[in-house]
Amino acid sequence: MGSENPLAPNALGPTVCVGEILVEIVATTIGDGFRQAQPLVGPFPSGSPAIFIDQCGRMGGAAAIIGAVGNDDFGRVNIDRLERDGVDVSGVAHDPDYPTGSAFVRYRKDGSRDFVYNIATSAASRFGWTPNVASLVDRCGHLHVMGSALSMPSASMVIEQAARIIKARGGSLSLDPNLRKELRYDADTEARFSDLVRMSDVLLPSGAELERAAGVDGEDAAVGRLFEIGVREIVIKRGSEGASCFQSDGTRTHAGAFDVAEIDPTGAGDCFGGAYVACRRLGMPVNQALLYGCAAGARNVTVHGPMEGAGTLDELDEFIKTTRRLK
Amino acid sequence: MGSENPLAPNALGPTVCVGEILVEIVATTIGDGFRQAQPLVGPFPSGSPAIFIDQCGRMGGAAAIIGAVGNDDFGRVNIDRLERDGVDVSGVAHDPDYPTGSAFVRYRKDGSRDFVYNIATSAASRFGWTPNVASLVDRCGHLHVMGSALSMPSASMVIEQAARIIKARGGSLSLDPNLRKELRYDADTEARFSDLVRMSDVLLPSGAELERAAGVDGEDAAVGRLFEIGVREIVIKRGSEGASCFQSDGTRTHAGAFDVAEIDPTGAGDCFGGAYVACRRLGMPVNQALLYGCAAGARNVTVHGPMEGAGTLDELDEFIKTTRRLK
Repeated sequence: MGSENPLAPNALGPTVCVGEILVEIVATTIGDGFRQAQPLVGPFPSGSPAIFIDQCGRMGGAAAIIGAVGNDDFGRVNIDRLERDGVDVSGVAHDPDYPTGSAFVRYRKDGSRDFVYNIATSAASRFGWTPNVASLVDRCGHLHVMGSALSMPSASMVIEQAARIIKARGGSLSLDPNLRKELRYDADTEARFSDLVRMSDVLLPSGAELERAAGVDGEDAAVGRLFEIGVREIVIKRGSEGASCFQSDGTRTHAGAFDVAEIDPTGAGDCFGGAYVACRRLGMPVNQALLYGCAAGARNVTVHGPMEGAGTLDELDEFIKTTRRLK
Repeated sequence: MGSENPLAPNALGPTVCVGEILVEIVATTIGDGFRQAQPLVGPFPSGSPAIFIDQCGRMGGAAAIIGAVGNDDFGRVNIDRLERDGVDVSGVAHDPDYPTGSAFVRYRKDGSRDFVYNIATSAASRFGWTPNVASLVDRCGHLHVMGSALSMPSASMVIEQAARIIKARGGSLSLDPNLRKELRYDADTEARFSDLVRMSDVLLPSGAELERAAGVDGEDAAVGRLFEIGVREIVIKRGSEGASCFQSDGTRTHAGAFDVAEIDPTGAGDCFGGAYVACRRLGMPVNQALLYGCAAGARNVTVHGPMEGAGTLDELDEFIKTTRRLK
C-alpha cells in the first residue's frame, strides 16, 4: 500500500545533515535561568543536526554531518560520539580560533526553557564549502535539512549547494522546519525556507510548523497544498499524540506514542526524524518507520542529555517490546 | 616604620581594574577535562580583575571595573554581584552580539587544571575607550593591572590610557603579573608588560613572576632591580608560606599563611591583592594589609567558586580570630 518510497535508498550514499554541533549543559533543578550558581550536568553532545544524524547512524543508516567544532574538549565530545555511532565526520571543520558552540538549558516550572548560548560566535556557525565538504556531498544519497541551521548564512549556503548536487545525482531531501522561537528569522531566511520546502521529498513538521510550511491554515488544506508544490510524504510529529504520515497517493498512516516518564524532552523530535529517515532509506514501509520513529523519540526523553537515549535497532526493538503504547 | 605609603589614598577616588569579566563553571569531580558529561556547578561570577575588585569593594575600598558582559544571565550574575559589593560598574559595556565570557574548570588529581573557555570570542574581550570609561577614569585614584588582561589588545589600550591619566592626577598603580601558562604572550605584550612594571608603585607577584618582572634571577637581586626602576613596594605572594613585603627603604615584613582546608584555590591571589590594595589605600600599615591579604586569600579557598569566599572587613576579622596561623 501507499506511494512509492520518495527517499533514495541507503545504498546511494549517506544521509547528510548540515548545521550546528554543540555541547549542552543542563541545569538539574527546575527554575528560572542562570542568575545563581546551581548544579549542572554536561557537556552532552548536542545540536539538532547532530542529534538527528547520530540517531540515524545508530539505527544502521549510512550517515554523515557537515559542521564545525573548536579545538577543545567540547568538540572532542561530539566527534567521539558521532564516530562511535558510525557517522562520517570528514565534513566537520576544526576551527583553530573559535570554541565549540555551547548551550545552557534550564527547564522552568511550566515546561518552557531558558537558554544561554554562544552559537553565532562559536565554531558551530563558522564553516563553509571546503574540498572535504565537496567530496563528501558528491557521495551522499540524501540531505536532511534542519530549519534551525538556516539562520546561519554559511550553513544556508552549504545546504543550498548540497541540495542541488544531491538531488541532481538522484538523491532525496527531507526537511524538519524546526523553527525555534528563540531564533530570529529575516526575510532572506524565510525565502530560503520556502525554496527548500519546494525541493523537499519528505517533510517532518511538528505543531504549527505544518501550516507555516504550507502557508495555508488547517491540517488537510496544508497537506494538500504541500503535495501540490511537490512534497511526497509528510510526517507530522504530534508528541504524546504519536505521529501521522500523509503520502501523496492519499494513504494516511498513524502510530501511537509510547507511555514514558519524561526526564528531558530535548532531542525527541530530532531522534524521531533520524530514525524515520534511516528506516525509510533502508527500505522499510511507512508504518514500520513511524513505529521506530516514535520509539526513538520516546526512548530519548527517558534520560538526561539531548542524544543520550538515541537507540540502536536492537535497543529500539527491546524498548518497543517492553513499553506500553498510548492510543 | 617603613617607607611612605606609595598608594594614593582612598579619598582620591576608586581603585579601578580593567579586564575580563567571566562566569566560571566548575567540575565537582577530580579528573581530566571535559570529554564526558559530568556534574558541574555554576555560573559563578569570575575573571581575575572581577575577583580582585569585588574583594576590594567588600573590604570597604572604593572600587570600579572596566570590562564587558553579554546580554544574558551570565552577564547579570556578574553585574548583580559587583553592584552588591559596592563596585562601580558604570565602565562595564553590555555587548548586544557577543555572549558573556565563560570558563569551565576541572581540577586534575595532581592539582593542575583543565580549562575550556571562550574569552577571546566573547564580550569579555570586546570593550574599548568609551565616554563612560573616560568619565570613570577621570575620577579614579588607583589603577590595578592584571597581567592576564594584557593579552587582549583592547584591554591593553584601555589600561595604557587609564595608567597615564590616573598617574597624571596623582593616583597610583599596582600590577599583578598574573601570567598564565595557558595564555600566549607575544613580543608586543611582553613590551607592554615591561612598560607597566616601570610605571608600577606596587608589584604583587607570586612564584617565578618576581624574577620575570625584574628580568633578574634570585629574589634579592630581583627586588633590588625593581626598586632601581622605580617600584616602591613589592608584595610576594607565597601561598602556604604566607606573604612578604619589601619596601624601597629596606623594610621587610612577613605574614604567615592561615591553616585552611582548601576546597577551591581559584581566586586566592586575586582576593589577596584586592584586600591588600584596599587596606593600603585606606591608610593601613603594611603588616595589617598583609594580614588582611592573607586572610582574604585563605578564606576564599574554603568555598567553591572563584569569588564566593571574598570577605568583608568584619568577616575577615572573624576569620582571623578563629583560624590557626601557619608559621
